[in-house]
Amino acid sequence: MITVAIIGLGLMGGSLALALKQASGLHLAQSAGPGQTADGEEITPTSCRIVGIARRRETLAAAQAAGAIDDGTTDLAAGVAEADMVVLATPVRTILRQLPEVGRHARPGALVLDLGSTKAAICEAMASLPPGLEPVGGHPMCGKEVAGFEAADGLLFRDRPFVLCPLPRTSDAALARALDLARAVGGRPMILDPVAHDGAVAGISHLPYAVAAALAETVAAPAGGSVRAGDDLLRSLAASGFRDTTRLAASDVDMMLDILLTNREALLAWLDAFGRRLAELRAALAAGDEASLRTQLTLARSYRSGLKI
Amino acid sequence: MITVAIIGLGLMGGSLALALKQASGLHLAQSAGPGQTADGEEITPTSCRIVGIARRRETLAAAQAAGAIDDGTTDLAAGVAEADMVVLATPVRTILRQLPEVGRHARPGALVLDLGSTKAAICEAMASLPPGLEPVGGHPMCGKEVAGFEAADGLLFRDRPFVLCPLPRTSDAALARALDLARAVGGRPMILDPVAHDGAVAGISHLPYAVAAALAETVAAPAGGSVRAGDDLLRSLAASGFRDTTRLAASDVDMMLDILLTNREALLAWLDAFGRRLAELRAALAAGDEASLRTQLTLARSYRSGLKI
Repeated sequence: MITVAIIGLGLMGGSLALALKQASGLHLAQSAGPGQTADGEEITPTSCRIVGIARRRETLAAAQAAGAIDDGTTDLAAGVAEADMVVLATPVRTILRQLPEVGRHARPGALVLDLGSTKAAICEAMASLPPGLEPVGGHPMCGKEVAGFEAADGLLFRDRPFVLCPLPRTSDAALARALDLARAVGGRPMILDPVAHDGAVAGISHLPYAVAAALAETVAAPAGGSVRAGDDLLRSLAASGFRDTTRLAASDVDMMLDILLTNREALLAWLDAFGRRLAELRAALAAGDEASLRTQLTLARSYRSGLKI
Repeated sequence: MITVAIIGLGLMGGSLALALKQASGLHLAQSAGPGQTADGEEITPTSCRIVGIARRRETLAAAQAAGAIDDGTTDLAAGVAEADMVVLATPVRTILRQLPEVGRHARPGALVLDLGSTKAAICEAMASLPPGLEPVGGHPMCGKEVAGFEAADGLLFRDRPFVLCPLPRTSDAALARALDLARAVGGRPMILDPVAHDGAVAGISHLPYAVAAALAETVAAPAGGSVRAGDDLLRSLAASGFRDTTRLAASDVDMMLDILLTNREALLAWLDAFGRRLAELRAALAAGDEASLRTQLTLARSYRSGLKI
């Protein structure tokens, strides 16, 4: 039996708990690849005992009722004390605040994994954990614009990339355990440097969010503050294109603030690149330069049509 | 029996043909509300004979095989000659080119309706049609990023706004026939001024498209032209958020060029409003001004969450 403590039972933590309960179990390979001993022998998966840690008792009760956790506590110190794996599934800046407390109470040898959306700040903080712990940064590339345990879904990680950022101090055995967990919940593990991760997700996740938010704001109050007279008309005409392009704007604001503010430099660079592209498009439109517009829109179309998501 | 000639059997024209075939029929009220005589008596719906007009014989064959049209021709003049209603379902600038030919060959009293995505230029051109014809601008607010008859769907208009722009010369009876057609295919008719329509759709449709295209371009080639080294990483990490925010970028380029270039002024104004919003967001991020970021993102979230699409 492996004890996994999950801190935070929102969309990510709740989904991880459900996925682990639905999985056949985890492998305990300490010094070989997951699922095999050093001799190459297969290891039978071991079932997990899941301890949920949340601020609100209602969340713990809901998670227990859904069969996502075996035990629940609002006491982080007590919850992590007996865990073989501690998973931080709170917003990024909460993870940064909680890491020192996890460091004080987790037992030696425990894997400390997080599911935060930015990795450089977290991996830097993980480097200060006590030497007996085994930190690995993590980010499953899946999400919804909904939050909370009620949105949790055991299939959330299925076939999605699950980024892992081992630290220089992370042992091979600990990384193998993190890989095993990522695979157990259905993810496709991908080992990445934290800074490379943050630069890439700034482009494919945080920039789209910022753009969607600015677009929703523009249509909400085009004059810059007050809701304009035509608002009802805009609402009644808005169709699937507007719906999809602005979907990310409905994301949880607290979660997104954490993400944006811990990935500022990378996102600013992407915002500037986007601004240049949009300015080129605007200039071609203003000039009625059909050939230039066609070139730009065709590049966009061929890239988008070629994406397999 | 009412004869409806549909010029263009792509997504819009093909879907209209299928929807009319699936409908119980059209009403022939000439001087009263649709479905009623001047005495308030109910009129039994009359079935439609649909004549499809397309450039390619393969399209006509496919539409005939799908039961969308009764007859097909590549000859616009012959196709519209016997029609009670002529529907132009080609891209906007093609509609502008075809209107004079429709004017020469349509029979007196015929309703001339179009399904183009911008309305001011088309309604202006419609004003020059011969006096015997009854022009009404139309725009069903539904779409997909796919094109062609193979994407046609008889349910495309169901419960979606179907904008109608009568001209000053349009008779009440002709408008009633257009309303009847919009309702017969499942749409919710909405009478609008062409300039008001173009301003609104520039915000909720053309701006989202331009933003989606610029976003796809940015991630396709952030350095501005060449595809950057990290491209494979970006592709493999891209998730549902990027997929949805850029979905419109996969729209047909020819169709979109027509739309953008016939709605330039309105779109430029919206692009500038969007640019101001994005600049505010960027400034708050650069300054680490969490309170300002929160205000902006909360406005975006509450608007987007309140949309019923």
